[in-house]
Amino acid sequence: MQIIITGGGGFLGQKLAKGLLNSTLTFDELLLVDQVMPVNPGQDSRVKCQQADLSNVGAAEALITPQTGLVYHLAAIVSSHAESDFDLGYLINLDVTRRLLEACRQTKAGIRFVFSSSLAVFGGQLPEVVTDSTAVTPQSSYGAQKAMGELLVNDYSRKGFVDGVVLRLPTICVRPGRPNKAASSFVSSIIREPLQGEEAICPVSTDLSLWLSSPETVIHNLVHAANIEASALGKWRTINLPGIHVTVQHMLDSLERQTDAETLSRVRFEPDEAINRIVSSWPGHIDNSRALQLGFQADQDFDSFISQFIINDLQKRV
Amino acid sequence: MQIIITGGGGFLGQKLAKGLLNSTLTFDELLLVDQVMPVNPGQDSRVKCQQADLSNVGAAEALITPQTGLVYHLAAIVSSHAESDFDLGYLINLDVTRRLLEACRQTKAGIRFVFSSSLAVFGGQLPEVVTDSTAVTPQSSYGAQKAMGELLVNDYSRKGFVDGVVLRLPTICVRPGRPNKAASSFVSSIIREPLQGEEAICPVSTDLSLWLSSPETVIHNLVHAANIEASALGKWRTINLPGIHVTVQHMLDSLERQTDAETLSRVRFEPDEAINRIVSSWPGHIDNSRALQLGFQADQDFDSFISQFIINDLQKRV
Repeated sequence: MQIIITGGGGFLGQKLAKGLLNSTLTFDELLLVDQVMPVNPGQDSRVKCQQADLSNVGAAEALITPQTGLVYHLAAIVSSHAESDFDLGYLINLDVTRRLLEACRQTKAGIRFVFSSSLAVFGGQLPEVVTDSTAVTPQSSYGAQKAMGELLVNDYSRKGFVDGVVLRLPTICVRPGRPNKAASSFVSSIIREPLQGEEAICPVSTDLSLWLSSPETVIHNLVHAANIEASALGKWRTINLPGIHVTVQHMLDSLERQTDAETLSRVRFEPDEAINRIVSSWPGHIDNSRALQLGFQADQDFDSFISQFIINDLQKRV
Repeated sequence: MQIIITGGGGFLGQKLAKGLLNSTLTFDELLLVDQVMPVNPGQDSRVKCQQADLSNVGAAEALITPQTGLVYHLAAIVSSHAESDFDLGYLINLDVTRRLLEACRQTKAGIRFVFSSSLAVFGGQLPEVVTDSTAVTPQSSYGAQKAMGELLVNDYSRKGFVDGVVLRLPTICVRPGRPNKAASSFVSSIIREPLQGEEAICPVSTDLSLWLSSPETVIHNLVHAANIEASALGKWRTINLPGIHVTVQHMLDSLERQTDAETLSRVRFEPDEAINRIVSSWPGHIDNSRALQLGFQADQDFDSFISQFIINDLQKRV
């Protein structure tokens, strides 16, 4: 059995690869695909890396073979990028998703297709706590594209063409590396940069509510999605992954508590209306109950997000 | 200013054309487009008819010109047909919608784009009364495709590429003509055929709840959608059109009341699981308040549906 991770060179793809290699899941091959040749995250002979631009005609189709048993479709154009490049966003976030689903359908029935969606599908007037029955009214092209992908995965699953699972990922914090074009990039930046002696820019108000997951928890949940029984999912394959509710102030307080005032002072406030508009349209609090019932896990508190980053990514002791 | 109606040869397209010609709307041309050459619904010199298969490459694009000011996109593969021909459903209901939107974007900003969606976007576990904030979880490919079209129209509107209005049409009763491949075809059939001395098949239970609109009311509301101010719509362009809540029993009682037991006896009951599954996943009751606030109208009672059909379509007196 072969596992494919699209976006396998990215932060999440690389962590997921390690998570799968360390899991009890049995497979023969783990294929990491990305626009830039992915790094092999270990010494495991099961890992194959492949450079491919999935937007090229036939590229998505060529990926899926009768050996494929599980696809993690993580590749995406992130939120601010999809907002500035409308056509590219639709090409990657909608068309490539559809081509992958279609390739699965044409190859064999029942490939487990795990689609990473986002709380960016929500937007506008939201209830205090978003539930599984809250309408998606995205206020960004990224959110619209992810919402369309969700509908596709559900419809292909209902028809038996794939065995899909849609996971709406909370905003992930702390992402290692550099800022990117995600509107939520600051969420990691305001922790990550100060911890490394660098300045970070906070473009939003400190009372903004966020719905967060740590990388460890998201990886645990992505691996869990490989094992979950289709019958447990019922008629609707879309799951709001568990997160924790924090405000930006809450995050900054935690940073100061775990470091010092000097570290905190590296965060500068420069309001950015475009980012604020996108991020404040996302829910700050989602009902976790269905996801927890299905065996997905939640983080405990924000302090552990910071210590997890220090230990795993900065490789220091807390 | 030119108005385009796709699906202009269909029952709704033809009635809408008459409605527009009789309205106070000012326009130079009304272009009816359909796969089969549409009938010219009157003597008005403003009407042009065109045969076109919009699924052909370039056909949707060729339709939109700088003169186009208003598009009614009614053309669709109906529910049971989209369920049996998966590829055709996605081609017409998703791809053609997207190509039309893209053609509008490439031609000029601000074309009013009225997209006919359906309560088939709903499905699965629904609340007793569906509201604007109820999640769409379609249990048919038709519903999934319409839900994706809704997201596209909203995103294109948010970006200012079109000035979109999405109308979720109730099930329309009584449609004139013959049964079609819509799962809801029986809803008109069980009234229309008995009134004309023919047998009709009811494939569902008499306690099934339905959300209905008469043709007159739907046409009134489609015309109204041309005039409504974008600012009144706010950030979300999707509107659940007003309907009335009836059961199949309620409809049959009304038929007997307005005719006789002999007419009623022409309805035969032949349960069809496939149709039942699709139709019973649709909501039977939707909160009308936003639509009414926006000036859309609702029918009063089911008796008037039957008399409307007798007068308008059978051209008899009640």
